[in-house]
Amino acid sequence: MPDHAYWCDAIGNTPVPHRITRRAAVALGAAALSTPSAFSRPSRPVIERWGFYEIALKGPQGGNPFIDTSLSAVFENGSTTVDAAGFYDGGGVYRIRFMPPAQGGWRYRTRSNAPTLVGKTGKFEAAAPASDNLGPVAVADTFHFAYADGTPYRPVGTTSYAWTHQPDALCERTLKTLAASPFNKLRMAVFPNEDVATLPVYPFPGTPGGWDFTRFNPAFFQRLENKIARLCNLGIEADVILFHPYDHGKWGFDSMPPEVDGRYVRYVAARLAAYRNVWWSMANEFDAMKAKTDADFDRLFQIVQSSDPYSHLRSIHNFRRFYNNNQPWVTHASIQNGSAVEDDARAVLYRDVWRKPVVFDEVGYEGNLAKRWGSLSGEELVRRTWEGAIAGSYVGHGEAIEDSAHHMWVAEGGVLKGASPARIAFFRKVTEQAPGPLEPIDKWQDWHLAGIGGEYYLRYFGGDAPQQWPFVLPRLGLADGQQFAVDVIDTWAMTVTPLAGTFTVKRRDAYSFAEQNGRAVNLPGKPWIALRIRRV
Amino acid sequence: MPDHAYWCDAIGNTPVPHRITRRAAVALGAAALSTPSAFSRPSRPVIERWGFYEIALKGPQGGNPFIDTSLSAVFENGSTTVDAAGFYDGGGVYRIRFMPPAQGGWRYRTRSNAPTLVGKTGKFEAAAPASDNLGPVAVADTFHFAYADGTPYRPVGTTSYAWTHQPDALCERTLKTLAASPFNKLRMAVFPNEDVATLPVYPFPGTPGGWDFTRFNPAFFQRLENKIARLCNLGIEADVILFHPYDHGKWGFDSMPPEVDGRYVRYVAARLAAYRNVWWSMANEFDAMKAKTDADFDRLFQIVQSSDPYSHLRSIHNFRRFYNNNQPWVTHASIQNGSAVEDDARAVLYRDVWRKPVVFDEVGYEGNLAKRWGSLSGEELVRRTWEGAIAGSYVGHGEAIEDSAHHMWVAEGGVLKGASPARIAFFRKVTEQAPGPLEPIDKWQDWHLAGIGGEYYLRYFGGDAPQQWPFVLPRLGLADGQQFAVDVIDTWAMTVTPLAGTFTVKRRDAYSFAEQNGRAVNLPGKPWIALRIRRV
Repeated sequence: MPDHAYWCDAIGNTPVPHRITRRAAVALGAAALSTPSAFSRPSRPVIERWGFYEIALKGPQGGNPFIDTSLSAVFENGSTTVDAAGFYDGGGVYRIRFMPPAQGGWRYRTRSNAPTLVGKTGKFEAAAPASDNLGPVAVADTFHFAYADGTPYRPVGTTSYAWTHQPDALCERTLKTLAASPFNKLRMAVFPNEDVATLPVYPFPGTPGGWDFTRFNPAFFQRLENKIARLCNLGIEADVILFHPYDHGKWGFDSMPPEVDGRYVRYVAARLAAYRNVWWSMANEFDAMKAKTDADFDRLFQIVQSSDPYSHLRSIHNFRRFYNNNQPWVTHASIQNGSAVEDDARAVLYRDVWRKPVVFDEVGYEGNLAKRWGSLSGEELVRRTWEGAIAGSYVGHGEAIEDSAHHMWVAEGGVLKGASPARIAFFRKVTEQAPGPLEPIDKWQDWHLAGIGGEYYLRYFGGDAPQQWPFVLPRLGLADGQQFAVDVIDTWAMTVTPLAGTFTVKRRDAYSFAEQNGRAVNLPGKPWIALRIRRV
Repeated sequence: MPDHAYWCDAIGNTPVPHRITRRAAVALGAAALSTPSAFSRPSRPVIERWGFYEIALKGPQGGNPFIDTSLSAVFENGSTTVDAAGFYDGGGVYRIRFMPPAQGGWRYRTRSNAPTLVGKTGKFEAAAPASDNLGPVAVADTFHFAYADGTPYRPVGTTSYAWTHQPDALCERTLKTLAASPFNKLRMAVFPNEDVATLPVYPFPGTPGGWDFTRFNPAFFQRLENKIARLCNLGIEADVILFHPYDHGKWGFDSMPPEVDGRYVRYVAARLAAYRNVWWSMANEFDAMKAKTDADFDRLFQIVQSSDPYSHLRSIHNFRRFYNNNQPWVTHASIQNGSAVEDDARAVLYRDVWRKPVVFDEVGYEGNLAKRWGSLSGEELVRRTWEGAIAGSYVGHGEAIEDSAHHMWVAEGGVLKGASPARIAFFRKVTEQAPGPLEPIDKWQDWHLAGIGGEYYLRYFGGDAPQQWPFVLPRLGLADGQQFAVDVIDTWAMTVTPLAGTFTVKRRDAYSFAEQNGRAVNLPGKPWIALRIRRV
């Protein structure tokens, strides 16, 4: 191990990305850059699987280190090889980050065109992950997600585009809000918005209109990383939006030259890919970015793909037109369309098209704006959450309730004011109790139920307020004589009321089973009711 | 021109595909194969643009002419070159067919590995097309279709899978029915169905279970061509289904070896591509064909693409799962999904995904079967036709009304018995009067109207039976003071009732205009009503 290797939180303003990093730092003791001569070789510094390992090296400061100096390291454990790009972090410091995909011993060797950075080697041990480290999220069962350890992950997301660009106190308030919220994913933009107040810390050196696009501003990205690490500690996935159109000529980050776009994406990937909670959202409302074509996004997706050795989830979010989500580099659909989740029979259509998970990341906002996108009632947003779930897809929350300071959760973060988050917490609790992912059963037939045929069902009534529901289920998994218990769920009042007795089914026709005596389920005649039906 | 060149209807059982062919034959007079010595070189035999030109040549009969003999001809007019494959038609006769894509002088030269077929040359003149020859249909305006001469083509299709496999008298009855019907497209399978009675004429020599897959049976394909030519004469597009799963081991045409599939597709393309009304439907319910993967269909699509010099429309029809219609060789989506056209806000979702025309070729059948796919009422099928149109897509008709002979239109053809065709004729008349293709306006907002913003609208109410409709329109194309005339259309009774007076709009809010005094449109309080709103 080179005597100037050290660990990330041993110097300056590098954030502590996660518990794992702290543990590694403890193991390394005095291996700080400021005292390289004091480095005492630790036998095997210990981090954990899916944790965060960082090599920091002193290197050339002359010329343009962002462009002139190449740096990467090959990590290997005997069966797996990971080629991780390094990056220049300013002040003569270079870093290479690594998320060990497997437990056990790892070794690395650096590659560089700089004599002082080349051929550095080291080794370390990745321990078993701690109980709250389930690894990165990936696609599972075609339409769903799971952590790397196999635990299902069901996105219950929210959005705050510009929260990282706010003062520290506001960022802390946002994190506190998130910690108490039901949300396990946050959509957030790297670049600031033109119309949202922004700290004067920018991704490039220079000033608006006079950026030096050949360099990056490490302080900007260090701040971003800190936020991502804080989300990781809260168990929240960071859906990092790489590009967006909300620039309108103020910053020019929406219309940088192609080589700058590519360099930026590679730089962000080198910095962030080792954070296990990172997802890549290529763009927000990509089709509103007039300076870019679909082919530009194809190229940038492929750069992300080749720059991220962990294959974090990749998507792209639409305005009015869809990108080709069938492209192999798209892992799941990230959809803006509120209309589609007004009816599960609409929402389900997209699943068939892409054969990938469908995340309705934007379906309108609970809000008090005049714009129709920002004026949903809490009831309507909660309805859309349920309708999307019954379709076997996932719906994201958004809030555009402007306060007297003109702050909104969707823009600056801060506090949540709406009625929907509590109901979404209830929704999350109910749906996470399901024995498996919600799958539409007998799709295209307007059953408005999902679950696992013969075992578990959720039937959702939306704004309808029937007095009764005929106990009829699609045939999948059913047999005469099976018995079911029924809970009446008020998704708005957040109550679960078990019904007395059970319902025994017998075949009704070629497609369905019904309660053997034709008995129906009595309902309260209110909107926002669901039924949970479980085999006993 | 070789002295044994001749024209298609001068010999044997070759069908007369179209008026154009007859005209060419007349010009050629005695140029019959049976009397090659009597051939007198015509100065320039005349056919027409998008007509049908055929070269027939005597060639080798020994060995296996289907495989051993290669044959094609290059046609050129000085600016365009078309390479058309030939095929063996039995009895020592080889044919090369050509649809001139442009008016004016054409010349050709044959290529072959057979000395008697190689280097034959000729020339002819393609005249202006007759008034009922609008050319082949292609995609227009992203989501719609037009004939090659620019005339819009709006598919109003129907399906009769096995009509060509029925006795001649029944085929004639089917053609007579079609001639009097509203349908301008017919989905039809090349291969017979396992469960539908079939003439004992098969695409390959041999018997079920003992086919010679290295050869074709020309008589089978001559019969098929005759039917396609007859459809052409009726102005009906032939949506030719190349593969389907309704074989169930009876014939084995659903599970032929890959090289046979490829040879079959090339043979069919060589025979049929010169018919201007041909569309290629790669498969019906492709995902129910267990012997084939999506990659197999990718390959077969590419064979069709390279074998058809005219790029006729190409699609593939689903059972429960979709093929990737974003593939460049798919020209439009051919969808089975009745649920999607129960609501235009469902149907519209597919358009965004593929950015191609969406043809709902199967949405359930007006029928008397116990199966739910074959038990729609006429009202329901007509509703789906309208809902799909309001979504800017196209819905196909189907009829499964079984008669005492167990015949159904969808299987054998014959006569139509349902209530929907008359209403579909009315639908076609109304929608063809629109000044342009129906486009959803302000999609994803549940307006349930389509048309051309500021100019023309159709608002459809489906099964709802309101007494009034508030006169409110999305803002696109509107300005204060514009006046509109309104017709109340009863899509089931097939009446159009103009309302007295006009409606003058003024801006209502950021998204809409309303009648200036808030006046509503009175409606008859019945289902199946539409409004036609036209700027005056």
